[in-house]
Amino acid sequence: MQAHDLPAHAGLRIDGARLWNSLMQLARIGATEKGGVCRLALTDLDRQGRDLFVAWAKEIGCTVRVDAIGNIFARRAGVRDDLPPVVTGSHIDTQPTGGKFDGNYGVLAGLEVLRTLNDNDVRTQAPLEVAVWTNEEGSRLVPVMMGSGVFAGAFTLDHALAQVDREGVSVRDALASIGYAGERVAAHDVGAYFEAHIEQGPVLEANDKVIGVVQGALGQRWYDVTIEGMEAHAGPTPMELRRDALLVAADLIRTVNRIALDHAPHGRGTVGWVSVHPNSRNVIPGRVKLTVDLRAADDATLLAMDRALREICAQAELPVTVDEVVYFAPQPFESSLVASVRESADALGFTSMDVVSGAGHDAVYLARVAPAAMIFVPCKDGISHNEIEDARADHLEAGCNVLLQAMLRAANAAVVGERA
Amino acid sequence: MQAHDLPAHAGLRIDGARLWNSLMQLARIGATEKGGVCRLALTDLDRQGRDLFVAWAKEIGCTVRVDAIGNIFARRAGVRDDLPPVVTGSHIDTQPTGGKFDGNYGVLAGLEVLRTLNDNDVRTQAPLEVAVWTNEEGSRLVPVMMGSGVFAGAFTLDHALAQVDREGVSVRDALASIGYAGERVAAHDVGAYFEAHIEQGPVLEANDKVIGVVQGALGQRWYDVTIEGMEAHAGPTPMELRRDALLVAADLIRTVNRIALDHAPHGRGTVGWVSVHPNSRNVIPGRVKLTVDLRAADDATLLAMDRALREICAQAELPVTVDEVVYFAPQPFESSLVASVRESADALGFTSMDVVSGAGHDAVYLARVAPAAMIFVPCKDGISHNEIEDARADHLEAGCNVLLQAMLRAANAAVVGERA
Repeated sequence: MQAHDLPAHAGLRIDGARLWNSLMQLARIGATEKGGVCRLALTDLDRQGRDLFVAWAKEIGCTVRVDAIGNIFARRAGVRDDLPPVVTGSHIDTQPTGGKFDGNYGVLAGLEVLRTLNDNDVRTQAPLEVAVWTNEEGSRLVPVMMGSGVFAGAFTLDHALAQVDREGVSVRDALASIGYAGERVAAHDVGAYFEAHIEQGPVLEANDKVIGVVQGALGQRWYDVTIEGMEAHAGPTPMELRRDALLVAADLIRTVNRIALDHAPHGRGTVGWVSVHPNSRNVIPGRVKLTVDLRAADDATLLAMDRALREICAQAELPVTVDEVVYFAPQPFESSLVASVRESADALGFTSMDVVSGAGHDAVYLARVAPAAMIFVPCKDGISHNEIEDARADHLEAGCNVLLQAMLRAANAAVVGERA
Repeated sequence: MQAHDLPAHAGLRIDGARLWNSLMQLARIGATEKGGVCRLALTDLDRQGRDLFVAWAKEIGCTVRVDAIGNIFARRAGVRDDLPPVVTGSHIDTQPTGGKFDGNYGVLAGLEVLRTLNDNDVRTQAPLEVAVWTNEEGSRLVPVMMGSGVFAGAFTLDHALAQVDREGVSVRDALASIGYAGERVAAHDVGAYFEAHIEQGPVLEANDKVIGVVQGALGQRWYDVTIEGMEAHAGPTPMELRRDALLVAADLIRTVNRIALDHAPHGRGTVGWVSVHPNSRNVIPGRVKLTVDLRAADDATLLAMDRALREICAQAELPVTVDEVVYFAPQPFESSLVASVRESADALGFTSMDVVSGAGHDAVYLARVAPAAMIFVPCKDGISHNEIEDARADHLEAGCNVLLQAMLRAANAAVVGERA
């Protein structure tokens, strides 16, 4: 630490224009007519994006390694190169109608941090790495967050390699065909992990803040629900003799919303998909299927929401079956790293607020095996997974400067030292 | 009238076994593996069914005429053959997965009445006719109730003849190809019209009654409704910042039900069709389209229901557009004929109850140009438009005996005399 407790290099700033230009250059690979990007995981476009990143990383003297699930690690040596690295990163695969910033921002912000340190001849105690995690989106191949999931042991490498896309191409073959099937090695220790990302939601914009200090990721429980009624003609069937499955579904949709509101501020409940049978204008629906997505910041809340849902379904006027299909545990981030993100934003003079990540990110898996934190910046109208996804250059620059400061703090002292 | 006010021929009974056998014989034409019938309007199967009916009608001495929309009239002369005929009938076209009784019962019950009169050498004052109305179902060609609609002037002959099916075949060409493009003549006067039909609903069965004395047909208003929200990720979007179109749809589905209950006993409200966009498990629905079907026994009630619907939609939290796409006026049946049906059921010792027709029938159009009434008999579990549609032989026999008595009363006295 310097005098007055200011971290070393507190005056360092990244090059916002260079960051923006890199984002725009990467966005050309798989660019869509509507201004978005379609660069599905493990396609030739993904290879082109990876090659560009690798070329940029090598340009600034990084060593580049690829693991067996195709994760790329661009490493900048530390003064004490035996220390576990401070890692940042994200993904460069996109949704079929994705945008320029989701994932790509986290990778290129990491690269910009390394470029800035090079430009200023700054060395860090711990080594730094920028990771490109394979197949975060899961659009072509599931499970989602595949590369970080293997790294964190959420599922096995062999399980991931065996998955196939709709054409029957396996992850194993796709990795080989693009030249990114790397060494089969154990995941390496990570001293600290940071991930910068567009928020993909409307909270920062609604609160007019530049930096989201992410406390953790919501836990998720997903359900398939089926309501069994009796199909009948809308005309000849009086109200009192109906067994209308859609009516029970309507009550359930409203109830899912109420359950979320009952568990404010972070409880979330969504019915996103509905299928009505026979779905005919003058036939009373005999069967309705729908999905329920419940999220909460802690497991006790999520369980209370689960119980409320099941209770309502059990009390419905018609038979309702509830099948849970997905469970992601809530994942709090490391409090010292979260504090470091907040302090960096404050020191840089950016407005900030505590937020939660409602969606999954590679950082959520990394948090299982390393101290981790995330930095959110606003995106226009909260829109993501859409070709019109947009973000302001000054916000992206701000987030990257926070990332720089947080990585410097971690690499030079506190967290790494404590855990090493 | 005979002594003690008993109508002449009060002791006449139709032959239930013959009626059943005719139904089963006709059901072989277009029979499906699951026990139903697929005999779409103006197909070769329809021709085979028509040919069988015409052959049966000629066997018992009827004269047979076909009009320009293909309606068939099998006529049994009256003592006073100048009187407008007492007509009964229905249709023999079916839904793609239809049953043996919908429509067919009304036609063959009429034929059985004539056979019974022949067997017993009974002559009536007014002539009797059995009508086979073209294309009631509208599965292949719209508008539905085409033959009776043209007869009643609901739309023009030329409009109906110009309609085409999905393969581009016109009604005009289809009629010619099956040999049922008849004379272009003005619709003839009808002294009284009766139609026997399975109920296609659950009311008679639920009330354990054999005969439904149909008071009239409900009016119908059909709507297309669109709710515009904002598509957003289920995870990163807090409850208070959502514009969830499905939530408004859920409230509307419940409201449509309440509007119907508020207008008991005959108010009906159904949402049968729902389309959610983008219909993805973890995306808040940005747009929901749904249909609303409102029915009531009188126009004042139907209009009140329409206003309630529009008011609720105008007050919704999100923009809701309401487009009315269909209006059928409520159609009361002729009170003297309705009374005659009830009295005939009573005289025959059958349990009966007043009911309304929630669905459209040829009789509803006929009621625009002639005194009309309907006779319902129960169908199993209220199921129709389904290959498992079923009805009991004794119920079908009972309905046919009521039809016989009601036609005799009309042809020999009261109504015809009054209106002739």
